[in-house]
Amino acid sequence: MAKNYAIGVDFGGTKVIAAVVDTARGKVKGEFKIATSAFDSGDALMERIFEVVDGALANAKVSVDDCAGIGVGIAGQVDAERGLLIGTANLSRSVVDLPMADLLKKRYGIPAVLRNDVQIAAVGENRFGAGKGCDDFLCVFIGTGIGGAIVKNGEILPGASGNAGEIGHTTIEAHGRVCGCGARGHLEAYASRTAMTKVILGELRRGRTSIITDLIEGIDPTSNDVSIKSGILKKAVKAKDVVVTETIVEAGKYIGLGLASMVNFVNPQRIILGGGVIDSVDLLFETAEYWTRHEALPHAGAMVEIRKAELGDYSGVIGAAVIAADTANA
Amino acid sequence: MAKNYAIGVDFGGTKVIAAVVDTARGKVKGEFKIATSAFDSGDALMERIFEVVDGALANAKVSVDDCAGIGVGIAGQVDAERGLLIGTANLSRSVVDLPMADLLKKRYGIPAVLRNDVQIAAVGENRFGAGKGCDDFLCVFIGTGIGGAIVKNGEILPGASGNAGEIGHTTIEAHGRVCGCGARGHLEAYASRTAMTKVILGELRRGRTSIITDLIEGIDPTSNDVSIKSGILKKAVKAKDVVVTETIVEAGKYIGLGLASMVNFVNPQRIILGGGVIDSVDLLFETAEYWTRHEALPHAGAMVEIRKAELGDYSGVIGAAVIAADTANA
Repeated sequence: MAKNYAIGVDFGGTKVIAAVVDTARGKVKGEFKIATSAFDSGDALMERIFEVVDGALANAKVSVDDCAGIGVGIAGQVDAERGLLIGTANLSRSVVDLPMADLLKKRYGIPAVLRNDVQIAAVGENRFGAGKGCDDFLCVFIGTGIGGAIVKNGEILPGASGNAGEIGHTTIEAHGRVCGCGARGHLEAYASRTAMTKVILGELRRGRTSIITDLIEGIDPTSNDVSIKSGILKKAVKAKDVVVTETIVEAGKYIGLGLASMVNFVNPQRIILGGGVIDSVDLLFETAEYWTRHEALPHAGAMVEIRKAELGDYSGVIGAAVIAADTANA
Repeated sequence: MAKNYAIGVDFGGTKVIAAVVDTARGKVKGEFKIATSAFDSGDALMERIFEVVDGALANAKVSVDDCAGIGVGIAGQVDAERGLLIGTANLSRSVVDLPMADLLKKRYGIPAVLRNDVQIAAVGENRFGAGKGCDDFLCVFIGTGIGGAIVKNGEILPGASGNAGEIGHTTIEAHGRVCGCGARGHLEAYASRTAMTKVILGELRRGRTSIITDLIEGIDPTSNDVSIKSGILKKAVKAKDVVVTETIVEAGKYIGLGLASMVNFVNPQRIILGGGVIDSVDLLFETAEYWTRHEALPHAGAMVEIRKAELGDYSGVIGAAVIAADTANA
């Protein structure tokens, strides 16, 4: 008989979260999360995953034997078929071809699958969130970076080498800002939370005043280690802070231009926008939506539905658990 | 028994061509073409199609009764299911919901199907050209405009409203040049033959010298009606004309940036580049290929195959005939 639970893990740029999920109802029975930063080794990275999985099982009061499998989504390039983490620029520069699925299976004795972090979120939203009943959509998540996934005919479109969906690396300003990937003018360099942080710090450095200096005590605008969180951006917009509002409107326009290009090229029925800063800052979502419709070709632009992701922090863990359960029960 | 022939029609921005095609072998048995320009009415547009179809049948010495069907591809928005031409900005601004398939069926007494012009070319290349044996590719044609089609699992990806593939309307320079569609900074405004013509005329107007003034006698750089053909561009590059070479290199870089964005987002196995100016000017193809690989993310960029279309002027008519035959024999 199929088991009721599966474990989902979402390994992102700022935190890793695991949850024991009732996969028939899309409900989280118990969760555990910790902050992440860059790790030195694959061992360290696996230790973090074991820690959150153990924590989630304990919090859910569910035995691992009652779980159909473990699904992991990670911000990196993965080989889904072999369960390998090929590499991840944001989490560890030294990890190459880490056999994550095998290591998880060995430790927990249940099947394990590995995916990209946006792909699991897209599956979560498709099954229980803003993508319910829709089998043709783009999922775009704005965070430390910008990631995406394409769903066609109800399936993630993997791409020829499993790397489809990288909307953050769309050229939006030829010869523009240098992107984390090394190329120029990519959307991610204009509209990720990292990019917004850089713009705001730049404005502070040249002497403009902003409520940000009150909201983040002792903030050093010359430091490269500052990360302005979504909750802070929300407070600043609410307080009508000019610097932050300008920054959000600029980023939202770029997101809209990037989405409009993809509306023209892929012509999806729906776009689901997610990520902490979209969740928190309505102005960003609204600006992005406006420019998407405004810039897309009339027919495709008028019919596309644009929605916020609905599962918040849980899109990824629910999607990862669903994939694990589907795979185990196939 | 299935008939050996079908009729394909390719209605583009500068010419309309019809061919009687041996659809099992992808061979043109007879063809007929005429120049096009803007038409006033749907009737005028249909008359042109009747003229080339009649001409192709006569040249092929094939009776319409030996043809399985007629397939038409046109540079415009089509409703493939109902065989309607919804609209076409470049051919006629007055045509709305023209029932082309029905009108063709009525006249010739055989089944007729309607598609977008790049979609038929993609099918032609897939069956008999640079896409043979590949079921996951992008087809991009550079001409008066820039059009594209996405083939996944051997099928054209139509998009939710049948409008997928519009790579010409990708924002490549936010806030940049005004595009024919009215929006700003689109690839088509930087890299179509129309865009190259504008750039070259601009250079002439500000006094730079170019072999173009020798190659096109009496050219008026202040006119909006000049169209510099691919053959002329080829001659100018061969003569090492600086203005034209610069223009081609600039356009080729923009094409590469646009393709790299789509390599990152859709991760195709292959890209097929076609159109008169790609056929004629090797430098354009080479520059586009260089920048596509250079700008794409490493994994997806290294594995994508980049090829020239192989059927030249015939991609479209062969593809249209193949679709007509497949539909009639289904």
